[in-house]
Amino acid sequence: MRSKTRGAIQCEHRDLPISVVNNFGTILKGDSCGMIRLESATTEESMPRTPQPHHTRVLITSGFWRAYQTLNHERVIPYQWRALNDEIPDAPKSHSVENFRIAAAMSQGDYDGMVFQDSDLAKWIEAAGYAIENARDDSEFPAAARQTLEQRVRHVVDVIAAAQQPDGYLNTYFTVKRPDARWSNLRQAHELYVAGHMIEAGIAVFRGTGDRTLLDVVIRLADHIATVFGTEPGKKRGYPGHQEIELALIKLYRTTGETRFLDLARYFIDERGRTPYYFDAEATSPDFVRIWNSPLVHDYQQSHLPVREQVDAVGHSVRAMYQYVAMANLAIETGDAALAQACRALWESTTGRRMYVTGGIGSTSAGEQFTIDYDLPNDTAYAETCAAIGLFFFAHRMAVLDSDARYADVAERALYNGVISGLSLDGERYFYVNPLAVDPRVCDTNGTYAHVKYRRQPWYGCACCPPNIARLLASLGDYAAHATGTTLYLDHFMNGTVSATLEPGPLEVEVGGDYPWDGAVTVTVSDAPASDTTIAIRLPGWCDGPTITVNDEPVKVAAVLQRGYATLTRRWRAGDRIAVDLPMPVRTISADPRVKSSFGRIAVQRGPLVYCLEEADNRTGLHTVALASVPDFQVAHRDDLLGGVTVITSAGTTVALQACDDTLYRAPAYPPGRTDATLTFIPYYAWANREPGEMVVWVLAG
Amino acid sequence: MRSKTRGAIQCEHRDLPISVVNNFGTILKGDSCGMIRLESATTEESMPRTPQPHHTRVLITSGFWRAYQTLNHERVIPYQWRALNDEIPDAPKSHSVENFRIAAAMSQGDYDGMVFQDSDLAKWIEAAGYAIENARDDSEFPAAARQTLEQRVRHVVDVIAAAQQPDGYLNTYFTVKRPDARWSNLRQAHELYVAGHMIEAGIAVFRGTGDRTLLDVVIRLADHIATVFGTEPGKKRGYPGHQEIELALIKLYRTTGETRFLDLARYFIDERGRTPYYFDAEATSPDFVRIWNSPLVHDYQQSHLPVREQVDAVGHSVRAMYQYVAMANLAIETGDAALAQACRALWESTTGRRMYVTGGIGSTSAGEQFTIDYDLPNDTAYAETCAAIGLFFFAHRMAVLDSDARYADVAERALYNGVISGLSLDGERYFYVNPLAVDPRVCDTNGTYAHVKYRRQPWYGCACCPPNIARLLASLGDYAAHATGTTLYLDHFMNGTVSATLEPGPLEVEVGGDYPWDGAVTVTVSDAPASDTTIAIRLPGWCDGPTITVNDEPVKVAAVLQRGYATLTRRWRAGDRIAVDLPMPVRTISADPRVKSSFGRIAVQRGPLVYCLEEADNRTGLHTVALASVPDFQVAHRDDLLGGVTVITSAGTTVALQACDDTLYRAPAYPPGRTDATLTFIPYYAWANREPGEMVVWVLAG
Repeated sequence: MRSKTRGAIQCEHRDLPISVVNNFGTILKGDSCGMIRLESATTEESMPRTPQPHHTRVLITSGFWRAYQTLNHERVIPYQWRALNDEIPDAPKSHSVENFRIAAAMSQGDYDGMVFQDSDLAKWIEAAGYAIENARDDSEFPAAARQTLEQRVRHVVDVIAAAQQPDGYLNTYFTVKRPDARWSNLRQAHELYVAGHMIEAGIAVFRGTGDRTLLDVVIRLADHIATVFGTEPGKKRGYPGHQEIELALIKLYRTTGETRFLDLARYFIDERGRTPYYFDAEATSPDFVRIWNSPLVHDYQQSHLPVREQVDAVGHSVRAMYQYVAMANLAIETGDAALAQACRALWESTTGRRMYVTGGIGSTSAGEQFTIDYDLPNDTAYAETCAAIGLFFFAHRMAVLDSDARYADVAERALYNGVISGLSLDGERYFYVNPLAVDPRVCDTNGTYAHVKYRRQPWYGCACCPPNIARLLASLGDYAAHATGTTLYLDHFMNGTVSATLEPGPLEVEVGGDYPWDGAVTVTVSDAPASDTTIAIRLPGWCDGPTITVNDEPVKVAAVLQRGYATLTRRWRAGDRIAVDLPMPVRTISADPRVKSSFGRIAVQRGPLVYCLEEADNRTGLHTVALASVPDFQVAHRDDLLGGVTVITSAGTTVALQACDDTLYRAPAYPPGRTDATLTFIPYYAWANREPGEMVVWVLAG
Repeated sequence: MRSKTRGAIQCEHRDLPISVVNNFGTILKGDSCGMIRLESATTEESMPRTPQPHHTRVLITSGFWRAYQTLNHERVIPYQWRALNDEIPDAPKSHSVENFRIAAAMSQGDYDGMVFQDSDLAKWIEAAGYAIENARDDSEFPAAARQTLEQRVRHVVDVIAAAQQPDGYLNTYFTVKRPDARWSNLRQAHELYVAGHMIEAGIAVFRGTGDRTLLDVVIRLADHIATVFGTEPGKKRGYPGHQEIELALIKLYRTTGETRFLDLARYFIDERGRTPYYFDAEATSPDFVRIWNSPLVHDYQQSHLPVREQVDAVGHSVRAMYQYVAMANLAIETGDAALAQACRALWESTTGRRMYVTGGIGSTSAGEQFTIDYDLPNDTAYAETCAAIGLFFFAHRMAVLDSDARYADVAERALYNGVISGLSLDGERYFYVNPLAVDPRVCDTNGTYAHVKYRRQPWYGCACCPPNIARLLASLGDYAAHATGTTLYLDHFMNGTVSATLEPGPLEVEVGGDYPWDGAVTVTVSDAPASDTTIAIRLPGWCDGPTITVNDEPVKVAAVLQRGYATLTRRWRAGDRIAVDLPMPVRTISADPRVKSSFGRIAVQRGPLVYCLEEADNRTGLHTVALASVPDFQVAHRDDLLGGVTVITSAGTTVALQACDDTLYRAPAYPPGRTDATLTFIPYYAWANREPGEMVVWVLAG
């Protein structure tokens, strides 16, 4: 049985009262013995928030995402611990833990790894914190695994605490290698980025364990950073080359209620892109310590314009997303209309013109960047896993800001496709790059595709993506729903318990079904206030003709549809049952004709899942395969395949490649002879879990 | 009037007898006052040759290629002289001439430029030598320009001679920067490559001017090299990382009749790829001086296998071509059947499976390399100008080896398309990379296309291509025809005088017509031996239904067709007139279906010219443009356009890009609405001579 006592945990740690707010504004009050309990953020008078987000908590208990959380708990997080401790044979060494041990004088040796190597460990700790929180609240997670994880976290937190410098500074690269060169190269050296991830880790560990050791460390770190940066005389007017600290500081503010962290976040956001550019001055300063030979291009790190004037998604796509998340968060916290409007413009640029159908973003490996509108090459795509995760975060913040289902539609597109494609079905292999068309034989020989892997990798020298997936999966419940006033918004269909503290009081529902394989979703009320509240259920943009019943009474969907949500308002009572049916026919998708690589091609989607053809189910030469002009899609769930997936088949045609006469160029041109074939599509996220082979998302139109 | 006294020139230079053999084996004997005259190579008993190539000389006097040679003489070569002397504003500095001045102690300063910067100047000198030779033989070239060119050559040759070290060593990089490190890094440092180009330059200057200063320099250089490399005890058993010296040494052997140069060439060819690998030992030697951090990959410089065992065109495409040229040359000189067979296999690999329709080769910018069969991306293509030139050279040697017209077919494809596309119509801008699909907006923002320019450039930091075009254009006559025994092969239709010394005696014809714009070619005999000889005229592979008359009498083509040549044998008399008509309808071409990027697309070719669509004549979104399923091609020559080109128009369709509703992904998929349009094609070589815009070679099949 699952324990539902998630509002209170026992812990043995320190004695300071503290409040923890999750991503939706949930405040978890910690008392003197470390007990923490849910409390509405609205009770914190010190926090001026407009609009007011209300806290939710989602415990995922079954189905598709529970399987991922179990995989995360049992395989991903333990595997990554080994990776961070350099225990994976034949994988690039992380050195992350060892760097901290060296910085803490617990070990001898030199720093190794990327300048931002600390962040890999920070993200893992964050994942562990959330995993512990989930395990704490759900007794079906094995207790022993949770205890092992807690011990590992406690151990590594102690190392990190020991590595912190007396003034609060925390960064192993500079502590070990260049203690003289702190803050000398904000553009390249990632100090503030690493600090941001460590702040997120401290919050997650506190949420999961109640232990505030790391939280105290990062509060000291944030306070140290505030002594270095700001508009006051004597401070540096810098900001990070890789955004992250801004969103972390806002989280820290929500966690602690301390407005100084919000102020520091706002400083970094407001300062960015002002002229004369900080990075220009920095680059010519005698103190500048170069990390790489990358040229100073302001667009690259989105420092080309003040953030409120930015309208195009440019530059490094992960940096962009983390910035936009912070902007949206700040807009949520402060009601800053200009900031919100900039977020909306950047959203349109990102998702309306520069996003793959998988929710991947970043069209080029050169700088891991956005390029221009409609430039979305399938085979040379970058579509970094971290960028899709960042887009998911951004979409969530926009959903909270505007409560419009179209944001969650994109979040869903990214999550079910371009995010989890980054993780192997066994949890121990990772994609950094998520292409939409792959030919392994070309990848092996054509260096243009050097960034494109056709097998997920055991680790990376730059291993940002693996622990990013882990922390997202562990915290996934934080993104499944949000609440404002009297409304609980169900953004994603994740089976489990959704609790919200609305203005009239607590509302709790159980979500059930077999999403994404089946569109029948049930929402059963288990607790509700004694007055009207609204349960707003996202009707996905991909769905035509959804139907809803409440206690078996049909609901006129058009009458309750608001910004993509079916808004069901009444005085809910325990046992009330909402049944949503989201018809899931197979859909064909065409891209804007300006998208060259997908022109004349069709993608196949069912529910939120984008599908692909793999050589294993089909044949080589997938670029020649055409879908029938009137496809006869057949859908079948196969428990035996790829961990259990719904497979789609259709009539199509292929072209014989081997029978041709080896004339490279032939005149007059003639269309190749086509042969009927049955095409077999699998979900994109599941590709590359069998033998290496070709893969395409976009299939020729028949 | 043109002077036809090309067999004898006045010159004031040194006194050693010497014989000069052009690429076809023509020997130009120099007497004691520098007079040189044509003499058959067969008279040199010291040169064992099997099969026996007979010398030809082609003076291009009118038409398409004469215009290019005039451009080369009047614009390209003078412009490049300025570039090599760092006199082009806003262009990368060459420093080539200055490096020699520094090495000769005529100037102070540091070496600058690539490690192989000397070769740029060497190729320019070679171009100048041939240009002088052409001007010498053709009084329509302005005498003043020729004199200026001769003065420049004399000046720079004196600098080079002064830079030669007492032992014969000649390389400014090592002389100026690392005199201690000579020959320590054959793989990367290009010393033998530079030496090869200098040898070719010395030969060309002697051919053009009779001045043997540079020839003597390079003979001393070659002799020095022979003291360093070889199988004898105490010598290095190395070979070049970038092939070139092998073919140059064979040319030097043909020029001087000295078999020691042939032997040295054979040594380099035979030694290559033997195990244990020289480059492995070199890389781990304490003497190794690293130039770049490029990894040691044996395929890259074709040192993975002994050359006779190589069957796949792999690695750096220019290095591959220069190697194959040398192999074919050696096979021609020695009758080495295994070498000839390897050449044929490498030819099939190169042109049958790894060549663009433009004759471009090298599918990836990563290492400027071949990749695998049928991997010929249009937009990320490399297709380096130098590689197409190298393929042209290779094709020519194969034509001499096997006298099969299919080699000249490929030579023609490369020359008329992927070679001269490297040169702007004004002669002063150059492409290094010759893509088959370009969107300038993407090139500007997507770093995957960093190598792809949509405007020819004034110069390059690595400027191998510009002087390579110059030397090819200046020496183009050497490749227009070849001769064996009693047969003169006319490989290319270049208007002018073709002279050959056949076994029965001299045969001279005048070629006329308006090729490539018109397929009517005339061959008029002006001199012939008093016995039967054969004029073999290539009937291009692209041509269906060629007709031939001799003195207005029709010839049954099928009866005279041998390996692609119409072989016309008789006792030719002055005034005999062969009229060849090569019908030139517009042809559509399809690629092998394994070529992904061209699948479902059609290329348009007329005569030897591959055509393309440019935005300037059509519109944006060229990827959406489709040729009508039954094209109504119209052909019109426009003197006012692009220096005079035949334009092709056809019915087709386009897709509205601006009218769509900005939905990036739409379901259900539907084909975009098509609008009838007239498509205007221009010759590929002429693209990018107007305002920047899109270009495509492969157009959607309607």
